Amino acid sequence: MLLRMSNLFVRTLREDPAEAEVPSHRLLVRAGYVRRVAPGGYAWLPLGKLVLDRVAAVVREEMAAIGAQEVSLPSLLPQERYETSGRLAAFGDDVFRLRDRRGAGYVLGPTHEELFTLLVKDLYGSYRDYPVTLYQVGTKFRDEARPRGGLLRGREFLMKDAYSFDLDDEGLRRSYDAQREAYIRVFDRLGLDYTIVAAATGAMGGSGSEEFLAPAPVGEDTYVACTACDYAANTEAVTTPAPAADQATRPASTVFDTPGTPTIESLVAYANSVGAGGRTDWTAADTLKNVVLRAGDSLLVIGVPGDREVDLKRVEAALYPVTVELFDDFAAHPDLIRGYIGPQVLAKLGIRYLVDPRVVPGTAWLTGANEPDRHAVNVVCGRDFTPDGTIEAADVRAGDPCPACGQPLALRRGIEIGHIFQLGRRFADAFGLDALGPDGQPVRVTMGSYGIGVSRVVAAIAEQHHDERGLSWPASVAPCRVHVVAAGKGEQAEAAQRLASELASRGIDVLLDDRPGLSAGVRFADAELLGMPLVVVVGRRLAEGYVEVRSRIDNSRTDVPVDEVVELVSTRCGG
Amino acid sequence: MLLRMSNLFVRTLREDPAEAEVPSHRLLVRAGYVRRVAPGGYAWLPLGKLVLDRVAAVVREEMAAIGAQEVSLPSLLPQERYETSGRLAAFGDDVFRLRDRRGAGYVLGPTHEELFTLLVKDLYGSYRDYPVTLYQVGTKFRDEARPRGGLLRGREFLMKDAYSFDLDDEGLRRSYDAQREAYIRVFDRLGLDYTIVAAATGAMGGSGSEEFLAPAPVGEDTYVACTACDYAANTEAVTTPAPAADQATRPASTVFDTPGTPTIESLVAYANSVGAGGRTDWTAADTLKNVVLRAGDSLLVIGVPGDREVDLKRVEAALYPVTVELFDDFAAHPDLIRGYIGPQVLAKLGIRYLVDPRVVPGTAWLTGANEPDRHAVNVVCGRDFTPDGTIEAADVRAGDPCPACGQPLALRRGIEIGHIFQLGRRFADAFGLDALGPDGQPVRVTMGSYGIGVSRVVAAIAEQHHDERGLSWPASVAPCRVHVVAAGKGEQAEAAQRLASELASRGIDVLLDDRPGLSAGVRFADAELLGMPLVVVVGRRLAEGYVEVRSRIDNSRTDVPVDEVVELVSTRCGG
Repeated sequence: MLLRMSNLFVRTLREDPAEAEVPSHRLLVRAGYVRRVAPGGYAWLPLGKLVLDRVAAVVREEMAAIGAQEVSLPSLLPQERYETSGRLAAFGDDVFRLRDRRGAGYVLGPTHEELFTLLVKDLYGSYRDYPVTLYQVGTKFRDEARPRGGLLRGREFLMKDAYSFDLDDEGLRRSYDAQREAYIRVFDRLGLDYTIVAAATGAMGGSGSEEFLAPAPVGEDTYVACTACDYAANTEAVTTPAPAADQATRPASTVFDTPGTPTIESLVAYANSVGAGGRTDWTAADTLKNVVLRAGDSLLVIGVPGDREVDLKRVEAALYPVTVELFDDFAAHPDLIRGYIGPQVLAKLGIRYLVDPRVVPGTAWLTGANEPDRHAVNVVCGRDFTPDGTIEAADVRAGDPCPACGQPLALRRGIEIGHIFQLGRRFADAFGLDALGPDGQPVRVTMGSYGIGVSRVVAAIAEQHHDERGLSWPASVAPCRVHVVAAGKGEQAEAAQRLASELASRGIDVLLDDRPGLSAGVRFADAELLGMPLVVVVGRRLAEGYVEVRSRIDNSRTDVPVDEVVELVSTRCGG
Repeated sequence: MLLRMSNLFVRTLREDPAEAEVPSHRLLVRAGYVRRVAPGGYAWLPLGKLVLDRVAAVVREEMAAIGAQEVSLPSLLPQERYETSGRLAAFGDDVFRLRDRRGAGYVLGPTHEELFTLLVKDLYGSYRDYPVTLYQVGTKFRDEARPRGGLLRGREFLMKDAYSFDLDDEGLRRSYDAQREAYIRVFDRLGLDYTIVAAATGAMGGSGSEEFLAPAPVGEDTYVACTACDYAANTEAVTTPAPAADQATRPASTVFDTPGTPTIESLVAYANSVGAGGRTDWTAADTLKNVVLRAGDSLLVIGVPGDREVDLKRVEAALYPVTVELFDDFAAHPDLIRGYIGPQVLAKLGIRYLVDPRVVPGTAWLTGANEPDRHAVNVVCGRDFTPDGTIEAADVRAGDPCPACGQPLALRRGIEIGHIFQLGRRFADAFGLDALGPDGQPVRVTMGSYGIGVSRVVAAIAEQHHDERGLSWPASVAPCRVHVVAAGKGEQAEAAQRLASELASRGIDVLLDDRPGLSAGVRFADAELLGMPLVVVVGRRLAEGYVEVRSRIDNSRTDVPVDEVVELVSTRCGG
């Protein structure tokens, strides 16, 4: 393929587009790969479409290699399917809904578990039919509250979604592992740096789940990675090691006046100033903070050490599918004294109480006394209150101990490029997907689902492969392997033309800058902005029989005899 | 590629699916190529997806060959773009609309003229940038009132839509001709029989337009083809040759009583019975039927010879973008006497009157007298009434004269597989798309748009390539070129396996029937249903060293030595 810039539908921009917040977005727009045409909706211009197609091709090859079969389902899906699965409510405003001319309700498919379950139920009946893994590469729609980062979080995007169907847990595990290995090969081939992290199962339900995150400063996902071992997890999925139960005998709890101390900070300062409980070394970690939430239709109080905040994303992941929000209406609950809530009365009030895993039996806390301006010391877990259970609700911080090895965790940011789930039988239960077993008895099928954000992957590659001058595509996804630039006119332009044709005739995809009337400087700047892996510059030394081969990846420059350059470039392109 | 039926996601059905009305739908479902998952929405199963991909690949190759550049635009499009172009109203209920979480209005793109116009405006400025032709292959959505025929008329379908941008009419003509030639190559390669017909421009506006119709009894489009010359046209676009003006001198028109004759039939019978105007040979063709329509906000009367019906599709094509419906509210218009309307009073009533081209000046008619139970004879066009113009409103019939040569026309049915339009400057006007000319003056750009219904083409191929036993794919789109079937087990199955692998290793796509425990009869029936062009049967004569090669296309059967079959099949597959 030989693309000529003189008639290619591409225009490079010197200025950053106003709406672009992140490097990938800025550069993909400036280099003419994509263009915004709607909120969260992008046009792929010819060079961008080539990158997108190359990413999709790698994904398809690796899916085929593990025996996954490609199909294609519609986007406009009857709403009742998502009601049956219970996900219409779970997606809430994130799903686009519409009605047809007869008033029937539809959603624009945000992900297709329901339809794939029904499709397999439709075709398959016997245990002999299983296992099967199906996938599609298609457009997905989500009504994001805040589309951002260009392709990183759009409202319409290209996704590979695969679904595995197995007869038992071991089969599901095998299908899951095959996808996991395929994902590793896909992301390796795409030149992405990535981390596989344990994930919360969130809106998908199910049990085991991992995310593939491409580390990037602009990533929306925060995850932890151990500084010593290979543990990594999404913050929603991090588990907190529980200390051993505290066996010490504690004095009885006592209540004391703490005027004007509704915050942890004011409480600690006051407690130290009066030597509460005979101590003057109180810290926030010695206090028990009780946060009131509305969880679905009920109240819920969560107790965490006072030096931690409650992270609502972690709470929602733990309580899924229940949605939660901070409770604010203390006027309606005179028993709950804002700023002075202690766990001692919650059981009596019939309010569910969950605690951070650090709040183990025997631990003693400085906490509210459920009266205005009063707190209590030596409030002992298991003696003065009994939680209804534990919950991963406290924020995760750099330096927290690794649940695997105890060494400090680091916090990182990444772009979610892939997500693999063991769904289990949730959707098979919802739609009654059974296989007739060898004994004539129905066997409930167990499923996995596996996504790759194909368009987001393009942005993730751009985030990881650029510098201040432009993009720098890995060879596996570059629109063209070689960019041929003539620095001057006349003979140089003719030689460039000739070289480009020769390279193309060897099956190498070539971009030729044959635009008339531009300076060499503009051409070089555009070559760096556009980011093909190799740039062949035909310049002044052509007169001596030399051209220059530049690597966009390592910025090396080599003068090469003009009659050797086709051979050399072919070799470097693996041909 | 080697597909094994033992694990391929396909199930053949012996029974016709209840909802399938047409052969392509019936066979594509029975053979496991597609499956209905929503009203007008189909899942493409693995074999169907392969056919769809092959059709799309041919389209892409021919688009690239004429220099059209591939891009990809979103489906979720801001409604105001379609308001600006005036098409939101024109599409009416045919377009799906929705609101996002903030209440902003969107349409699901039914076709993308607006967005492509804006995209080109966004990137291009100078006359030097032109011409350019862009295209995409993507999902389109239309809220069809009556989705039917499976893939023939869905609500969500795959389409190739291309858009050309030129500086002048001659350029547009060149771009249009290039697309027309590309379409001819595409449909030839796809093995389709098709006719190119002159088309009405309908909802697209613009001037020149042609449709590519694949003749099929189930086709929704009626078109005419001359029995003598090569004239062909969509019925909306057929023109009626006007007879020469009638120079005869006619007696003055006279009104007479015609009690109880509100229909043409009753009028003709009565006129003959009383010898009206001294004649007893009245026929419906001698009467002038006046049909009242509501066209937009106004009334419109259309006059046609009484032996013709008014075809509202032709009227709408002629009056586009005005929508029309039959007028029914005669109570509100006491001046219009239902069943007895004549053109004599329409000018006075201020009602627009258009006539069939056969109603030329000087022709005399038997028509209504605008009084209950009264008609008039010798009502002469140009003397007793003067139409406001002519309109192609009358139904077209087999035997009507060809507008090109005057010989009889035949009526045919076809499937619209492609449509090419010279849009002209309509969208450039709506969005202000100008190129800066060499003299610094803006030049308004002129456009064409060119569609191929990629998913519908799959159905059209199936309509034209099947028999009572199943599908019969042209080699260019068959999922596999060869279907290898072992009639028996043991050695026959092993030999089939081996042959399939050898063929696949030569780059031939092979489908192998390796399903356990089926009779040879079931396998043969499935091979005929699935429709690969060549079937290699490994049966009893394997013992003597022979296998059978069957052509699904001409049903020929040849015994071939087993050690020659790979070579023979490779040759027949062009390898």
